[in-house]
Amino acid sequence: MDTIYLDNNATTKTDPKVLEEMIPYFCDKYGNPSSIYKMAHTSHDAIEESRKTLCEFFGANKKDEIYFTSCGTESANMAIRGILSANKNKKHIITTKVEHPCVLNLYKELEKEGYKTDYITVDNNGELNLEELKQKVTNDTVLVSIMAANNETGAIYPYEEASEIVKSINKDTYFFVDAVQAAGKIKLDVKNTKVDLMGISGHKFHAPKGIGALYIKNGTRINPLIVGGHQEKALRAGTENVPYIVGLKKAAELAQNALEFENKEVKRLRDKLEEGILSNVKNAKLNSRTSKRVPNTTNIGFEYIEGELILLHFDELNICASSGSACTSGSLEPSHVLRAMHTPFTSLHGSIRFSLSRFTTEDEIDYAIENIPKAIKKLAKISPFQKELTALLGE
Amino acid sequence: MDTIYLDNNATTKTDPKVLEEMIPYFCDKYGNPSSIYKMAHTSHDAIEESRKTLCEFFGANKKDEIYFTSCGTESANMAIRGILSANKNKKHIITTKVEHPCVLNLYKELEKEGYKTDYITVDNNGELNLEELKQKVTNDTVLVSIMAANNETGAIYPYEEASEIVKSINKDTYFFVDAVQAAGKIKLDVKNTKVDLMGISGHKFHAPKGIGALYIKNGTRINPLIVGGHQEKALRAGTENVPYIVGLKKAAELAQNALEFENKEVKRLRDKLEEGILSNVKNAKLNSRTSKRVPNTTNIGFEYIEGELILLHFDELNICASSGSACTSGSLEPSHVLRAMHTPFTSLHGSIRFSLSRFTTEDEIDYAIENIPKAIKKLAKISPFQKELTALLGE
Repeated sequence: MDTIYLDNNATTKTDPKVLEEMIPYFCDKYGNPSSIYKMAHTSHDAIEESRKTLCEFFGANKKDEIYFTSCGTESANMAIRGILSANKNKKHIITTKVEHPCVLNLYKELEKEGYKTDYITVDNNGELNLEELKQKVTNDTVLVSIMAANNETGAIYPYEEASEIVKSINKDTYFFVDAVQAAGKIKLDVKNTKVDLMGISGHKFHAPKGIGALYIKNGTRINPLIVGGHQEKALRAGTENVPYIVGLKKAAELAQNALEFENKEVKRLRDKLEEGILSNVKNAKLNSRTSKRVPNTTNIGFEYIEGELILLHFDELNICASSGSACTSGSLEPSHVLRAMHTPFTSLHGSIRFSLSRFTTEDEIDYAIENIPKAIKKLAKISPFQKELTALLGE
Repeated sequence: MDTIYLDNNATTKTDPKVLEEMIPYFCDKYGNPSSIYKMAHTSHDAIEESRKTLCEFFGANKKDEIYFTSCGTESANMAIRGILSANKNKKHIITTKVEHPCVLNLYKELEKEGYKTDYITVDNNGELNLEELKQKVTNDTVLVSIMAANNETGAIYPYEEASEIVKSINKDTYFFVDAVQAAGKIKLDVKNTKVDLMGISGHKFHAPKGIGALYIKNGTRINPLIVGGHQEKALRAGTENVPYIVGLKKAAELAQNALEFENKEVKRLRDKLEEGILSNVKNAKLNSRTSKRVPNTTNIGFEYIEGELILLHFDELNICASSGSACTSGSLEPSHVLRAMHTPFTSLHGSIRFSLSRFTTEDEIDYAIENIPKAIKKLAKISPFQKELTALLGE
């Protein structure tokens, strides 16, 4: 069996159709979009066509509300730093305990710079405490950042409702949504929300790594993170990555068209994998039991077994999965998301995220269901927690 | 005749060999370099191989001194903001009047934030006033930024000597070099200089738009511009653009190998073009007569003719060239570089940059030499400065 790639929340395969669209912009249509000759117009027009498609993808009102960036992390940094820099008089900011490091680590930096921060908690299923959000917003709150879907558990957060709550208490508080894990999985419809800024990353929905976008609602004043030329209305300097911007357009179109497929077929395979593991592995527990999940993600805790060891055994089976997010791997700390959910110690260290895509096949899922239980049983035998495992597995 | 692309300082064609190297990393070897399975190692190893090549390209000591960014502008912003953020007690910074907007516009921002700035002047040929630099460095000077080669004129600046001067006056002053227009044209040898940071951009030497690199000398402490995951030793968060990083490696290898070709053959064609225009167009004057120029660039002022008009006529001849830098086009201001050189009013507005590459052919230069004088003569006839032109052209 070839590689069973079940780590699509870490990154995805570039869709060959996306690559095909990009190719002419490398060696043929390579003009600098800022120049004034015909060849430059070709590049410029390609960018504006992509902006139009991305506008529809976000569900925005106008294409001028879309800005291209180099990744989801830059989108988040540009949004958060940009709002704070343009509103220096207010010093209170809010986010959640379960954000991606691109928001959480930036908030930690901002604390050092004198910002007062609040981190909204989640319950055992990873659902957000909106009551707590309501209590935290004050006159001094300049920004609230809430993700649309969690990268580790797939839990969908009610950012629309959260933005309504925030604006009803303080209409001058800006609202940023990290929609990196929602894009391509659930429909975005930003114009019908109170959201001011929303960031996405192409490589989570089959565009290449190295391209992102940021929606900024018309009339929202931000300062640029990267200063220089006049590109992106002087809010993001640097020669535009025309091939990837063209690729992002195609990826957005394909993702938009595949939304129904994601929510039926990818979900069916995800549910089959989840059910296949939970019913065949006695020490497996589903993290995040909420019904509001993106269709491709499941996070399963294998009690009394160590996550890295599981992943290495999966790798021998050619199964790619992850513990925590790729952006935090390398650290030996257990997932901050699962800790925020008070996931019990027994399964915290052995929690594995499986994330599918529209390229995942039934054969791959069958192979995973057949082989994962065997691997876990093998690992259970060498776990230092034999007493606990015997009690649990009844063997 | 197909497009005669003489705007390689704006951007270059991606070398087909570079594209070829990148292709497998889109749809096949697409693992997230931060993950722990085999497929991720492939990506991780590809990045480290590229870092090794870039280390040689910069002439650095160790590959750990190389950081990947999304473009030259990001490299400059990361270097400048990074140094200032890590050294907040000092408030004096120096640069030149002829930098790229990614440095100049950032300095303008920094002025608003309370920094005291000095801008070193250049002479009529665009050569840097090192005596002035010597006088400006003080105990409070935290950073000096000087470009290695000017994007508009091709003038090479003695950044090695400048860094020696700066360090001899204040050893704690950091020295950043924007080497975007030097990379691939002159040999970089950063380890034998006093330079602390140096930035480059891939798309100026036949890698795609959307990839850059920053050299940071070991021991130089900077704060990150983009915060999030642990990528690039936590100094540049965001999933790595693996295909472009692989492409940058190939582009650096090809450029390194082509250095002699650039300085012989490309220079020969540049000189032929320059000579061909200057000897056939009586109202043409060479801007920047310095002998220290990158081999591919010439900047010629056509007296009493308007630059945009020239470029549009060139476009009809399928010749791509530029007035000023692509990053400042759209603005009607004449070039800040030529103004700093006190280029006379008569040719300031009609100054055109021609920039060749290793893909430029003799046929293309012959075509340009044949057609450019005709176009300029045509335009001279409709210039509002008939009296001046008649005196000059003697017709």
